[in-house]
Amino acid sequence: MDVPEARRRFAAARVARLATRGVAGPRIVPITFAVVGDRIVTAVDHKPKTSRALARLDDIRADPRVAILVDHWDDDDWSNLWWVRAEGVAALVEKGPGIRRAADQLAARYRQYRDRPPAGPVIDITVTRWIGWAADGG
Amino acid sequence: MDVPEARRRFAAARVARLATRGVAGPRIVPITFAVVGDRIVTAVDHKPKTSRALARLDDIRADPRVAILVDHWDDDDWSNLWWVRAEGVAALVEKGPGIRRAADQLAARYRQYRDRPPAGPVIDITVTRWIGWAADGG
Repeated sequence: MDVPEARRRFAAARVARLATRGVAGPRIVPITFAVVGDRIVTAVDHKPKTSRALARLDDIRADPRVAILVDHWDDDDWSNLWWVRAEGVAALVEKGPGIRRAADQLAARYRQYRDRPPAGPVIDITVTRWIGWAADGG
Repeated sequence: MDVPEARRRFAAARVARLATRGVAGPRIVPITFAVVGDRIVTAVDHKPKTSRALARLDDIRADPRVAILVDHWDDDDWSNLWWVRAEGVAALVEKGPGIRRAADQLAARYRQYRDRPPAGPVIDITVTRWIGWAADGG
């Protein structure tokens, strides 16, 4: 799968999974997101959080390298399987106009954010590599 | 969400995502799996691989700590969202009866493995923590 196709499939997905290296082992959480060129933005939103939910921010402060996965599952026909992984470097945006800009980008994709824009912090990821795999060769 | 409920939801899912810490940053891949008590088994199977696909095994050799995520997405109603993350330590099984045992456990869940049992290596994860989150409180 070439990079434009990988990015296209990734950008069209509704949910992705964000992995951080973690201090005591890797962490993964599902995220909502928007792709803007070679950037991926996601934000801490109003969905209820566990006490550990913001640990992802601490992970990024300790090591900004992240990976984000989108995948397609088909229980019956594995020739339909594909996934795309974005590898990159995350920056935290904790205040300023970047919060509003990301909130607008997310609200354009998810109606739930139109009434309740995510307040942040925002995780702004510069993708350094798009890697795609498809069982049918893509 | 309590641990038995977290484990039950995880065990019933068809696909999960495995994160390793990686040497040059975290890695995530979708996996098929079976839960056996507090163990999760997955295996390298016949699905076509990228040249980097077995990098997950190198990651585990370098650092056996892993996290595995199952999540439930609902585009319309976010009160239905939930996820379960298993944190644990992975062991690689590259030969011996552990391969066949894992293949049988996987074939019991995925008909695709009945004709073509995964040849391995097997990744055998001892879960040290089940963490569940549900938007509705679980």
